[in-house]
Order: sequence, then structure tokens, then C-alpha cells
Amino acid sequence: MSVEQKLYLITRNLQEILGEEELKRIVSERELNVYWGTAITGKPHIAYLVPLMKIKDFVDAGCNVKILFADIHGFLDNLKAPIEKVQHRCAYYEKLIKSALKMLCVDLDRIQFVKGSEFQKSERYTMDLYRILSITSKHDAKKAGAEVVRQVENPMVSSLVYPSMQALDEVHLSVDAQFGGVDQRKIFTYARKYLPLLNYEKRIHLMSPMLPGLNSDKMSSSDDLSKIDLMDSKEAIWRKIRKCFCEEGNKDNGLMMIFSHIVFPILQLKGECVRITDRDGREMAFEKYQEFEEEFVRKSIHPGDLKSNAARLIDEIIRPIREEMEKDLDMVREAYN
Amino acid sequence: MSVEQKLYLITRNLQEILGEEELKRIVSERELNVYWGTAITGKPHIAYLVPLMKIKDFVDAGCNVKILFADIHGFLDNLKAPIEKVQHRCAYYEKLIKSALKMLCVDLDRIQFVKGSEFQKSERYTMDLYRILSITSKHDAKKAGAEVVRQVENPMVSSLVYPSMQALDEVHLSVDAQFGGVDQRKIFTYARKYLPLLNYEKRIHLMSPMLPGLNSDKMSSSDDLSKIDLMDSKEAIWRKIRKCFCEEGNKDNGLMMIFSHIVFPILQLKGECVRITDRDGREMAFEKYQEFEEEFVRKSIHPGDLKSNAARLIDEIIRPIREEMEKDLDMVREAYN
Repeated sequence: MSVEQKLYLITRNLQEILGEEELKRIVSERELNVYWGTAITGKPHIAYLVPLMKIKDFVDAGCNVKILFADIHGFLDNLKAPIEKVQHRCAYYEKLIKSALKMLCVDLDRIQFVKGSEFQKSERYTMDLYRILSITSKHDAKKAGAEVVRQVENPMVSSLVYPSMQALDEVHLSVDAQFGGVDQRKIFTYARKYLPLLNYEKRIHLMSPMLPGLNSDKMSSSDDLSKIDLMDSKEAIWRKIRKCFCEEGNKDNGLMMIFSHIVFPILQLKGECVRITDRDGREMAFEKYQEFEEEFVRKSIHPGDLKSNAARLIDEIIRPIREEMEKDLDMVREAYN
Repeated sequence: MSVEQKLYLITRNLQEILGEEELKRIVSERELNVYWGTAITGKPHIAYLVPLMKIKDFVDAGCNVKILFADIHGFLDNLKAPIEKVQHRCAYYEKLIKSALKMLCVDLDRIQFVKGSEFQKSERYTMDLYRILSITSKHDAKKAGAEVVRQVENPMVSSLVYPSMQALDEVHLSVDAQFGGVDQRKIFTYARKYLPLLNYEKRIHLMSPMLPGLNSDKMSSSDDLSKIDLMDSKEAIWRKIRKCFCEEGNKDNGLMMIFSHIVFPILQLKGECVRITDRDGREMAFEKYQEFEEEFVRKSIHPGDLKSNAARLIDEIIRPIREEMEKDLDMVREAYN
């Protein structure tokens, strides 16, 4: 694969890159080492498929990819995950994310899975943590975490430690780049400023856009779409989709976001087109989201049909994940009951 | 030694004890495990002799005593000690405190000296730190450190981590009790509240009074007495004493504090009395501070004579420490230059 092809795969669908020159330099010389971290908090929902598709891009581009299950971060973030639950949840996340990656046809052997607790208690890491906390003002720490860490009235000290650890993870995972949503931007710029103060090199930062109504609260936060769980049954999916905002001909809604960022890309990578059946049994097939959107805008697709087809397609996509997870329902119960 | 004698030695000259019943229970059953920690920050001054005399009491009462050189705390406290200097300073503190203890006729073999960095980077400690920081609000952490941690306009995150680590030190040093100045009270009560939340037992807290003008800023902070360094020459001591506030017959001054808390107790433990020579060559000898104070209050001792005798007596007391330290001036230079 040419350097250009690799760079195309690595950077497509990103909203922003910090350190692009360094990225080009490394990719032209060797494989990129990149990590994506997920804090072990609540229950991963459908929007998790979006970063996992980027993981596939990284793997396809020959990168050495690490996925960090940030278990300690899960409770440092104002106890989003209870300390005594976090290992069970971590097992759940690991199985879920691996199942999703398999569904996306990603070769798991090409990815290194790491738990935060495997290295964040080491002597070297801990000393680095003491060092970085000694030069990080409360003000900078609060600012860095503002869009990631749960904002509560009486926050815990750990919520100020969270961004510093995410910065150190880049060093201790030995990566060139960190990938995350653009909501991570302030933590990324914090890391870029502070790692050099500890005589570490600043890393490259690859940011995917936030999807309003899916992984961001900026729009239609009252919709239930962002609550579609990767283990949801077809009926559960339908219940969450049924009532969501969807106006005839108006493409600005979470469902269209799901079509553009989840349904189309996933079926595309499987070499399938997206088939829509309306209430009269008529079928339309689309290869590209753009054509589909045009049909919706010109009102050839009714909102009701959009919803029923979305429910069916989402179910088809996530069913393999659900079936995999249902083999171990005890684990699921221990993680969330 | 009877339990009563032990309890007398352990508790004399303390201002406050938290957990006195537990103290009595333990001392009646076995030797008490107690620690005193000193953060490696600036340069230890003459008031350090006061806690070291309590250390002697603990040793004499048969306690298992640990002295913690809190090197990491030294830079966590808003970089009071620069990170790159802290190991040199720690060596200085260790030699100085050991020299002072020898001067106080304490058998060093009866004390275990520990550096914070020896255990504060361990896996168990680090995990406990993550746990306690996850349940400690910023508000509680700030309050706990208010009288100990340097108060600056833009504090570092580490200054909020400081009290939690001091609480965990009690657990990881395996002690029954922590000894410190009453300025530590808020950290001690924090530890008493939070250790049980981690399923650790709360410890006993032994607090010595603050000495205004010596180890507290509450009085005569413009005086230089608190700046008498344990390595000061007689001339340096004199320069710092010469200008301090001392009114004829008024016993409320830092010099009288030095006589009552340092000069008298130390000469007493060496079996000597305190001899004062006035400018006319007349000599007075005192066995007890109370008699000395009465003479001063009734103006039989002139402030000028008080100062010159204080300088001479302090020099006699700390000279063995200075001579020991001067054997290794390279170490001193590396610590503070």
C-alpha cells in the first residue's frame, strides 16, 4: 500500500488532526503506532461503532493499533463506574468491542488490547503521575477535562487527575498518536503542552467528529437514539427509534446521522447496498448515502418508512454482537446489576 | 516500664490526642507503632528539635517508631522542593535529623527511617490512591490541606492529592498512630474520615502544639527566630536573635519560647541546668523553666542578656549537628544550590 493510500485511510472521516506533518513523516518511514482509549463507564451504545470503523481504517493502513480499556479512568471520572463493578464492566467492554470489531471484519490479532490497570499502577507510571500533577494547575486540569469528565457540583479530586493520566497513557503505551472524538480536544491539547514539560515528545492527535444526537448532546438530546444499546433486540431498537424527531424531507435528525455514519459505511465495507422497503412493499437500493439523502429530502422516503427500515437495518448490523454477548449473560449481569 | 509511665511519655507535651481510648488499649497490650513524617521542602530550622524530642519520648516508651522522609510530598506541595533537587534534599534531611537525634541521645537503631518514594510508587499504594481520590471531593481535599499545603493563587492538582497520600501513608507504614503538629489537624481528621471508607481502620493522632514565632506564623512572624538554621554558626544565630522582639519583663516572645521548648528540655535530658551570665559576669543557674520565667518577668534578667545567653546556649546545643553536617558540605551544596 502506498504512503498516500495509508494516509488516506488513517485520516478519512476525521474532523481534525494535530501534528499532521509528523503523521506524514512517520507514515512515510514506518508503521504508525496509534491508540484509542475507552473509559469503562456506563454501557457502550451504538455510536461506539463509529470509532471502531476508524480502528478498522488504522488496521487496514498497517498501523500498530492498541485499544485501551481505561478501567481506572472509569471510576476516576466522578465514579461513573463504581470501583467494585469496574472489572466486571471491563470484561463486558472487552467482549463487546471485540464482537463489534469481528462484525466489522477486523482481524483481532492485529490489535493489542490493554487494560489501564495493567500499567497505570507501575512505578514508572506513578512517578510520572506525581511529576505531572505537580506542574498541572487545578485550573488547567479542570479546563482539560471540561468536555469529557462528568461535570458535577462537588467534583472529586480524581476528576482533575483524569486528564493527566490520559496524557501519560500516550507515553506508557509507546504510541505516536492518540485517536478520539473531537470532544477529547482539550485533553489532547493539554497533553501536547505538558508532555514536553516532562521531557516526553508530544504525540499526534486524530479526532473524529461528534455526531449530534448520537454521541453528543448538542442536538436532540431528548431523542432515545443515543441510547440504542449494542445488545438491544429489534423490539428495543424500534421502541427507541419510533418516537424520535423525524420530519418529512428534513435531513437534520439523528436517524439520518445513523444512516450516514453507521448503516451506509458498515454495509459498504461488507460490500452490500442499503435496501429500503416502504409500507407498500416497494424497494429502493442505495450504494451511497448521498443518493439516499437526496431521496429523503425530496420526500420520496416517508419518515415512518425511514424509522422502520432503520430499526431493521440496525438490528441486522448489531445482531451478531448481541448473539455473541448472549453467550455470556452472567458476565452482563455482573457488570450492570 | 509500667503502662502509665509509657502513656505519660507518649502523651506529655501534646496539645491534643484523637483516639485516646484506642491509644490506652494498645499501650496496655503491646508496643505502639507510631510515625512522624517530614515533607522534604525547604531547610529544617531549629523548631524541628521539638518533634524530635517527642520522638525520643516515643522511643523511651518502647514504641516502634518510623520517621518518614516524605520526598514526593516535597514537590507535590506546589513544588516547595524542585523535583530535581528532592533526592539531594532528602539526603540532607536524613543526615540532619539523624545528627539531631544523636545529639538528643536517641538510639538510632530503635527507629526505622523510610522514604516516601520507597512505597508510594508501589502497585498497592497507587491503587489505594486512585480509590481515595475517587471519593475525596476537591472541597474536602482543599480544606484538609489548608494549614499545611502552601496556599497559592493558582495551586497545582498535586496539592489536592497531598492530604490523601498522607492518609494512605498511615496504612502503608502499618502504624497505629501518626504524630505531628496541631497544624496537621485537618489532614488527620480527613484521614480519620476517609480511611474507614476504604475499609481501613482509622489511626490514632498525636498532636504537639505550634510554637508562635517558631513553627507558626501566628505571632512575631517578622522575627528571624524561626529562621535559625540547624547548621547556623554562633554568629549567624546571633544575627537572627539580636533584632528579635523582646521587651523587659514581658515573657510573650519567641526567645522565651525557645527557652521553654528547646533549651530547657534538651539540657534537662542531658542532666544539665541552664546557666545565664549577665553583662556584669554574674551567673544564675536554673533547673526548671518556670523559675527562669519568673526571674525574667520580675526583670532580673535583661533582654540583652536573654539574647546573648540564648545565642550561646543554642549554639552549644546545635553545634554537634553542625559539625556532623560540615563533614559533608558537598551534600549540603547539592541540596540547596
